[in-house]
Amino acid sequence: MFFTKLFSINEVYKILEKEQKILDLEVVRLENAYKRICAKDIVSKLDSPPFDRAAMDGYAVKAEDTFQASEDNPVELKVIDRISAGSASNKKINSGEAIKVNTGAPLPPGANAVIMEEYVLEKNDDKILITKRVTPLENVSLKGEDIKRGDKVIKKGQILRSQELGALASAGYSKIEVYKRPKVNIIVTGDELVEPKESLKLGEIINSNKYIMLGMVKSTNAIPNVKHCNDNPTQLKEMLLEAKEKYDLIITTGGTAVSESDIVVDTVDEIGKVFFHGTAIQPGKAMAFGKIDGTPIFMLSGYPVAAMVQFDIFVRPYLLRMQGIDFEHQIVKRITKKKIISSLGRTTFVRGIADDKYVTPILSKGSGIIRSMVKANCYIVVDENVEGIYKGEECDVILFNSFTLGV
Amino acid sequence: MFFTKLFSINEVYKILEKEQKILDLEVVRLENAYKRICAKDIVSKLDSPPFDRAAMDGYAVKAEDTFQASEDNPVELKVIDRISAGSASNKKINSGEAIKVNTGAPLPPGANAVIMEEYVLEKNDDKILITKRVTPLENVSLKGEDIKRGDKVIKKGQILRSQELGALASAGYSKIEVYKRPKVNIIVTGDELVEPKESLKLGEIINSNKYIMLGMVKSTNAIPNVKHCNDNPTQLKEMLLEAKEKYDLIITTGGTAVSESDIVVDTVDEIGKVFFHGTAIQPGKAMAFGKIDGTPIFMLSGYPVAAMVQFDIFVRPYLLRMQGIDFEHQIVKRITKKKIISSLGRTTFVRGIADDKYVTPILSKGSGIIRSMVKANCYIVVDENVEGIYKGEECDVILFNSFTLGV
Repeated sequence: MFFTKLFSINEVYKILEKEQKILDLEVVRLENAYKRICAKDIVSKLDSPPFDRAAMDGYAVKAEDTFQASEDNPVELKVIDRISAGSASNKKINSGEAIKVNTGAPLPPGANAVIMEEYVLEKNDDKILITKRVTPLENVSLKGEDIKRGDKVIKKGQILRSQELGALASAGYSKIEVYKRPKVNIIVTGDELVEPKESLKLGEIINSNKYIMLGMVKSTNAIPNVKHCNDNPTQLKEMLLEAKEKYDLIITTGGTAVSESDIVVDTVDEIGKVFFHGTAIQPGKAMAFGKIDGTPIFMLSGYPVAAMVQFDIFVRPYLLRMQGIDFEHQIVKRITKKKIISSLGRTTFVRGIADDKYVTPILSKGSGIIRSMVKANCYIVVDENVEGIYKGEECDVILFNSFTLGV
Repeated sequence: MFFTKLFSINEVYKILEKEQKILDLEVVRLENAYKRICAKDIVSKLDSPPFDRAAMDGYAVKAEDTFQASEDNPVELKVIDRISAGSASNKKINSGEAIKVNTGAPLPPGANAVIMEEYVLEKNDDKILITKRVTPLENVSLKGEDIKRGDKVIKKGQILRSQELGALASAGYSKIEVYKRPKVNIIVTGDELVEPKESLKLGEIINSNKYIMLGMVKSTNAIPNVKHCNDNPTQLKEMLLEAKEKYDLIITTGGTAVSESDIVVDTVDEIGKVFFHGTAIQPGKAMAFGKIDGTPIFMLSGYPVAAMVQFDIFVRPYLLRMQGIDFEHQIVKRITKKKIISSLGRTTFVRGIADDKYVTPILSKGSGIIRSMVKANCYIVVDENVEGIYKGEECDVILFNSFTLGV
């Protein structure tokens, strides 16, 4: 029932930072590590490439032997061995000799360059004619030129995209220690909520928050479980007491305003601690944060758009930091193509459509208008001290794509 | 063995467009539809909200009854009913009457506005005093103001983010028809390849492409399966013949250059059709595309960075289009902080680190340097007719984040 003051965004962030929970670690096989978060700085066990190797198909030679070579004046060399990738020659090249190599094969001892096949004429089984000069190290990949043994290849907190997985493999790792994925219980409250169907009784509202929150939680790599709860404090209390044992984080939607039917915040206050109730953002004022025996709980609005804004601004950073990601919202500048109207005293998140230079605000009435989010690819962020932004002015934008954990 | 000419990017795109395969459809439950691709235009079965409803907790009234109300001159109304969200009143409000409503409750017949609780004094059980005037439709959400029955809510080819799932639920859908996810067989070729381990024999190379390609394929929502194959045409042929039956698409890495040990393109040519071999891109020249009995096969380079560029530029759009997404690369402009060196005659993809305004090219020697991809968040694209770009000039950039399928 309390809503004594609205907490500013920065006050909320300070509380969340103080109450941030970080998850334990687990070891996963590299093939299952895509988009997981590396838990430690990783130092390479190996050089990559592990040896000087041929970067082209051709003949390993002493570069000096080719310095006089040209099409008119080919140089003859003796082929003393032929090796493919995956095998090595134990023969050493002396002046006047060559070894046939495939791309990736170790450079034989004595050789310092590879001449491409197309500049070589095969005279007979063990004689070739070189028609072009090569310089030392030409067509050679040097040992460790990509990764040196002992190099730090991946940093703690780094998201493992495809290329990071490749670097870890090359560094000799088949398993990797990562942060656990948060298990999140979503409890959607509201007597009026029903599953999607073709016709509704008067008073029934479709539970769209269930599907929205499932998607939002998945987008952070967390593992969601969703339940519905009536506006019944006893039922809610039971669900919360079960959730705080089984899950890493709880999200509720609905029941966060200040009328007597808004039971969520009072119920959490009864069995845990509420750190604040009410934030100075628009949409999304009716939100609270608490803990029940150490399990964080975000109490979001029942209005879909308000709940999405609350999620993106507060829950998303919290869930990502739980997994060891040092997440901060990335603000970029765009020029608005239309006047933006905002609420003085509250940081306003206007849905917008941005390209690389401009943004068009989406005009919509309230925090129930989910189609404004369907059209949008960004939030325009208007400071609480600003009343609006004129057409043609620069404004702050958070692109939804900036929430991605890498591709 | 063939490599008769290098195909330009546009020539390759034309071939791929002609040979594009599109997957069949399937119906999934809405809770499993996150990031799937909608297969049809979806028209709402319902209005959302489904009825005029209270947007605030308070009292439903006739606005006209409050026009004279003020703190000094409160207007008395009779409370004839109390309803919460999820239920409705069958009573009709007449002049001088009010019904207590919670947010989300249907607006009772006769009422045309809601006055917030905080402007109401409760006199006794069935009498209230109104201290502020409300205008007609104040604090009312009108039926259909978000979505109207018959409105197109989601378009064919749209990626289902959280908000699209919410809109579909509100439109009355619990299931949705989407494109199937492509099943992709990745065949990594090379005798020299071994799994990650702490020490290597001379000639052995760690199979990093396995992990890189697993990640790349996952990033397109496709379902990967990965196998290793030696440089052995018989083994490869067997694997390909099995793969073309079981999978929607095949990706190979390695064996695409033109020496006799490069067996992949010849093998595909023997059992299927090769449409081109060799593209005018840098890195990534050694690539081919074919079909084996209608199953598309992308033959990528064995060099990790070359294979990643080939994937991002050609395979990624193909895999996304298979799922019904009308994907095009998004080119944005950035100012380069350093000189960019490129290859005349080939479209060059230089790895870069971009912010919202600038890009810094990553200098690296070859297409084996996976760390250049670890540092990068974009490609700088240099046209085949351009030899380089000076520091301070604008250049074309593809941000890796633009590959995301929405968050």
